[in-house]
Amino acid sequence: MKKLTIQETAEMLKHCEDVHILIHRTPDGDCIGSGYSLQAVFRQLGIRSKVLCDDPIPKRFHFLLPEEPEEDFEPKCVISVDVAETALFGGLEERYGNCVNICIDHHISNREYAEYLMLEPDASSACEVLYKIYRAMGVTFTEQITKCLYTGIATDTGCFKYSCATPEAHIFTAEMMKEFPNIRYDLINREMFTVKSRAQLQVEIAMFRDMEFYFEGKVTLVWATLDICEANGITINEMEGLTTLSTQPEGVQVGITVREPKRGVYKISMRSTDYVNVSEICQKLGGGGHVKAAGCTLSGTMNEIREKLLKVVEPAL
Amino acid sequence: MKKLTIQETAEMLKHCEDVHILIHRTPDGDCIGSGYSLQAVFRQLGIRSKVLCDDPIPKRFHFLLPEEPEEDFEPKCVISVDVAETALFGGLEERYGNCVNICIDHHISNREYAEYLMLEPDASSACEVLYKIYRAMGVTFTEQITKCLYTGIATDTGCFKYSCATPEAHIFTAEMMKEFPNIRYDLINREMFTVKSRAQLQVEIAMFRDMEFYFEGKVTLVWATLDICEANGITINEMEGLTTLSTQPEGVQVGITVREPKRGVYKISMRSTDYVNVSEICQKLGGGGHVKAAGCTLSGTMNEIREKLLKVVEPAL
Repeated sequence: MKKLTIQETAEMLKHCEDVHILIHRTPDGDCIGSGYSLQAVFRQLGIRSKVLCDDPIPKRFHFLLPEEPEEDFEPKCVISVDVAETALFGGLEERYGNCVNICIDHHISNREYAEYLMLEPDASSACEVLYKIYRAMGVTFTEQITKCLYTGIATDTGCFKYSCATPEAHIFTAEMMKEFPNIRYDLINREMFTVKSRAQLQVEIAMFRDMEFYFEGKVTLVWATLDICEANGITINEMEGLTTLSTQPEGVQVGITVREPKRGVYKISMRSTDYVNVSEICQKLGGGGHVKAAGCTLSGTMNEIREKLLKVVEPAL
Repeated sequence: MKKLTIQETAEMLKHCEDVHILIHRTPDGDCIGSGYSLQAVFRQLGIRSKVLCDDPIPKRFHFLLPEEPEEDFEPKCVISVDVAETALFGGLEERYGNCVNICIDHHISNREYAEYLMLEPDASSACEVLYKIYRAMGVTFTEQITKCLYTGIATDTGCFKYSCATPEAHIFTAEMMKEFPNIRYDLINREMFTVKSRAQLQVEIAMFRDMEFYFEGKVTLVWATLDICEANGITINEMEGLTTLSTQPEGVQVGITVREPKRGVYKISMRSTDYVNVSEICQKLGGGGHVKAAGCTLSGTMNEIREKLLKVVEPAL
């Protein structure tokens, strides 16, 4: 593994051919914005590329996808964006896990699985890293590229709410806004952070009602089980904004959201509101992420999951 | 009434003496940040000043208040910040309504009641206007001034979510963050946008459950009545974040939140998610505000209020 600078990555990207761009499973605004902005940049350079994801892109991100149909081809180059480890490729891990040429990422927990690594752990988002790379490449920004990058920066910072919202994140955002004043950033934010279907609202109400409090309210546990979702007629994938619920009560240090994508399989999202390093905690459970936002996957019964989580969180409080 | 430029305002402020600074009733982050930053700036210049508000400052803003006790004195100069009309002085209107020397504001609906008016209707917040004025004055920024201005900009833009989050709002924020990297902006945001007491969560759940939908879901009506608050043991003043509930359901164009501060008196907050001008609508009901966020006060029965609101909103859809 060789580490790259922004400038080296910029040079390298210009000379890629037939690229498969990999993003992580359960795709979010940052990996989607990263993947599809990179595809748009490659199109500008006349380089064929395709974005691959093990899960479908949620509907609310479809405005970031290109209008042109994507063609199938064998890759000569594999690039991953916003993927800290190959397990996050999901079903694509077997094929791509060992052959990633370039990884562009901002997760401090990156496992250095790629031939070349461009890692900026202080960047708010992979999209912020790509913003710098595109500027170094002399890319002509388009409305689509701007929407992609804005969405990635905004979603990973919780709309500039979290500590990862650096001065750079604000400055790059301002630069894009000045260049494309007619993009309705407010409507993107509304889609990303505010809008919920009535079914989602019903589920949230149920989850709030059943929220569990531990260690004098310092830890909350919120369950989005298959049963709750089925009872309200929605799929677990429609419940993305959920992680924000767990940290809303006063005094919470660690908010834990547990989703159940398949019966008995639990995806854990952990959020720290202040001093707890949840990346470390999730690494102990086989996962990873950022200091303030991390995750892992566990299986077992609800009781086993609860016990496992509380045991590993307690010493960090 | 004479309109001022940033530069003229900066000059004028330097030569004030014994200033009463007035902010609006039901104080929010922007008027509190404006008022107390201005007081801190005056203190730097050796000018005596005092912030006056008809309502108590909510607890979550207390970190913006000065440590020094405020002294009483007769004003030689009266300045209002973030106050569009003198009715918003509340109980202080009688004494100050006709003697405001300088008004610094960003509301397009400003009634031009002051001797001198510094109005920037395109600014995200009064704090953004003051940021420019302080720079023009050569003010030495302190941690307290920065926290005040950041809080005002962040709260009035919904943490950079709304269309009023201009490139300037982002740039000024970045400048302050660079100057004071150790301020915990993330914790300020958590206090402002995320944290809720358990009682507040209970009330929100109740309000979500009882949300009213009109005109095919384009208009929502959320009631925070005295009865609901009393049933959950909190005061209406503790329910400030409420206005964000009304716009969460998919398809909402106008979200209306109705609070009942006194039996039979209703404070209306109207939010537009896209094309509707709620400032115009609220002006028809004797209120005002911004294109996307406005308010008014009505009295009557709930049925009368509902009818009045729906009637005036319908033509704008």
